[in-house]
This record gives sequence, C-alpha cells and structure tokens, in this order.
Amino acid sequence: MTDKTFGPFELLAAHKGDVPADFVARRRIAAAMQQLSERLIRAEASQADLEHWAGTLEQLAETVGTPERRDTRAANRRMFSGAATAGDIFDMMDFDPAGGLSNPISPPLTWIKETPEGVEAEVYLGMHYQGPPGRVHGGVIALLLDAVLSRAMHAALKIGVTGTLNVRYLNSTPIETTVRFTARLREMDGRKMFIEGGVFAGEEQTVQAEGIFFQPRFGR
Amino acid sequence: MTDKTFGPFELLAAHKGDVPADFVARRRIAAAMQQLSERLIRAEASQADLEHWAGTLEQLAETVGTPERRDTRAANRRMFSGAATAGDIFDMMDFDPAGGLSNPISPPLTWIKETPEGVEAEVYLGMHYQGPPGRVHGGVIALLLDAVLSRAMHAALKIGVTGTLNVRYLNSTPIETTVRFTARLREMDGRKMFIEGGVFAGEEQTVQAEGIFFQPRFGR
Repeated sequence: MTDKTFGPFELLAAHKGDVPADFVARRRIAAAMQQLSERLIRAEASQADLEHWAGTLEQLAETVGTPERRDTRAANRRMFSGAATAGDIFDMMDFDPAGGLSNPISPPLTWIKETPEGVEAEVYLGMHYQGPPGRVHGGVIALLLDAVLSRAMHAALKIGVTGTLNVRYLNSTPIETTVRFTARLREMDGRKMFIEGGVFAGEEQTVQAEGIFFQPRFGR
Repeated sequence: MTDKTFGPFELLAAHKGDVPADFVARRRIAAAMQQLSERLIRAEASQADLEHWAGTLEQLAETVGTPERRDTRAANRRMFSGAATAGDIFDMMDFDPAGGLSNPISPPLTWIKETPEGVEAEVYLGMHYQGPPGRVHGGVIALLLDAVLSRAMHAALKIGVTGTLNVRYLNSTPIETTVRFTARLREMDGRKMFIEGGVFAGEEQTVQAEGIFFQPRFGR
C-alpha cells in the first residue's frame, strides 16, 4: 500500500493495483458465496442438510449484524478532487453488482483488454445465472452489457450515465462456459456517446448491444 | 402437497401454490445470503472478523461439496406434456436469477398483479444492487425488466424468447426503497410480441422499456 491518491481518470488503473488487505478477505467472502450459490442450484440434498445449511447462514447473518458502512459519497468527492485513496477506489469499484469481486451477487468479470479503443472481459457464468435450460439468462446478459459498455466509456476517459440500452439477442449464450464481452465507444455527438458491444461464445456472436450514454452538463 | 400435475400455461398458478418443504429451506438459504450480501457492502469490520466470516463461508462451501443437480430438461419435457409435478415447477421457477426466491443472487420480486392485461411486481433493492451512489445499478434494472416483460408474456398465456430489449433511463431509480415494475403485452404481429414495461418510484416513472419477444415456430 502507498499513500498515492487518485482522480476520476485513474479509477481503472488504481483498481488494478495492490489489493488492500481487507479486500482480500472481502473477495474471499464473495467468492465463497458465489460458489455456494452455484452449487445449491437444484442441489440434491436431504431435508436435514438443507435446514442445517440454512441455519448456519442465518447464524452468520446474525453474527455479522448490521455494521456501519463506509461512505462512498465522501470517497466520490475526494476522487473528483484527485484525493481518493486506494481504499476509496476499491470501495467504489469492488462492490459493483456487475463485475465487483467483493459483491457476493456479482458475476466475476475478468478484464482482458481496457484501452480507449475498446474493452474486453471474460466471464464464466454458472448455473445460478441460467435462464432457459443450458443458456445464460437474457437479463443477466443485459446486466453485464450495461457494465461493459460503461467500462468502455471509462477506458476512453469519458464519464457519463446510461441514457438507453438496446440489446439484440441473436442466438443463445451457453451457460457453464467462458464467454467474452466486448464494447467500444463508436461515436460522439455533443453530450451523447454511442457505445456498441457484443457477447461472443467462441467465435460466434450471440448478442449485439448499443448504449447511448450522456456526459454530464458542466457549468450550468 | 398433492399429486396434481401441470402444463405450460399453469406455471404461474402452480408456483403460487403450497411451497414444497425442501423449497422452504432453500428459500431460507437464499434469504440469509441476500441479507449477508446486503450487510457486507462496505461494512466497517475488523480484519479478524472479515477473515473469520470468509473462513465460515469457505467451510460451508466445502461441506456442501458438489451435489448432483435435479434435471430441469426432464421437468421441461414433463411440463410440455402436462405432467409436471409441483416440485418440477419450483425447480424451474424458484432458481430464476431474476426473481427466484431460492436463488441467492436474485433480487426478491413480489408479484402483486398477474393478469393477461399486465403484471406488476414490487422489489426492495438493497445496497448490493447499487450503481451510482443512492441509485439502483442500471444493469440491475435491465435484468429485472427482462424478467418482468417475460412474465407479462406468460401471464398473457404466450410462450417465447426475448428478441430485443430496449431500456430507456428517464431518471435515477432510488436504492433502499420499494420500487414497482410493470409490463404488458401491447401488440402482436405474427410471431412477434411487443411488450412494454416501466419502473416506478412512488408516482414517478424512472425507466421505460420495450421488448420484442418471438413465439416459437411450430410445425417446421
């Protein structure tokens, strides 16, 4: 850990740096819960085992209680003045419900390319993300596309919010195999950013997406 | 529990019936994991506590092991011949990643209206579904809209798959409050079904959506 601080365009780089010790433990928690979520889908198990596991988890929830939360609004303000710490960056990025490795409900995206020209991520989606038999749930695809399109915007050093997200399902995306998500900023028009994306299973594109993102209005 | 069996148009009704005993336990597991996921987002906690909780969850994952899974393909075949059991229906519906009460990663939707004229669901989204500070993640909105549009199709006694999903974000959707999702089948054109939906926070509509779903081709 260093005392280096970060601004809004250093988010991705800072989040790739050393993982703070508490986030090593938080990621272990999320990974174990992902594993449990996957294994318990339609699991053959005795009634006694199911009830025992439920009891263990309820007991843990009681032990955890309702801890105070770190304030990301303050971390956000520090970021916009270039004063965010590495811990602030992990607080902002690592709990994201679409790709955050410390969020137990999030599919764990691995970023394999992040440049201003585009981003690529790989993800293995287990049975807890299934829609029709053998296929990834269409809504889970949309969840991840929103995240990947937004990441392409950040990688192109832009900030903004999703205006529209259009997803076109070309073919089914297989479950229990590693699939690839891509996105790139295609065009800008004033405050509007047109970002296109796709999902690939092997060489086959299974989904197309386009998002229109809006840059914030400054100086109003 | 009865020995009654069900076909494809009785899915929703069967899933509202008595909850099989194993699903009572499976829902307790999912609810406890939802609670843990929410409470652990940016939780202030000592390093020792975080590591202890990680260890408890890793131990539970090891205890659960890799159980065999019930086969939903067989359940699907039984359903299409009207021979699905209540357990089959719960196997198919209750693990859905968008609304399934036995899926630990799924936001827990409550259906408050399900008629051929339209459906409505309520959901309280906790901090583990947050995007920008104070707001629901846009991708989580898309995930749930896909599910709610698809439910409107089933409630109108149609079957089909998502062709396109278009989501327009009008305003931010607040986190940590109950919001409402709606959808209805607006129009049909051959195999195409146009389904529109929305998200409401109080009286304000925050998101608009339209999906085009395709009915299966028969007799080819």
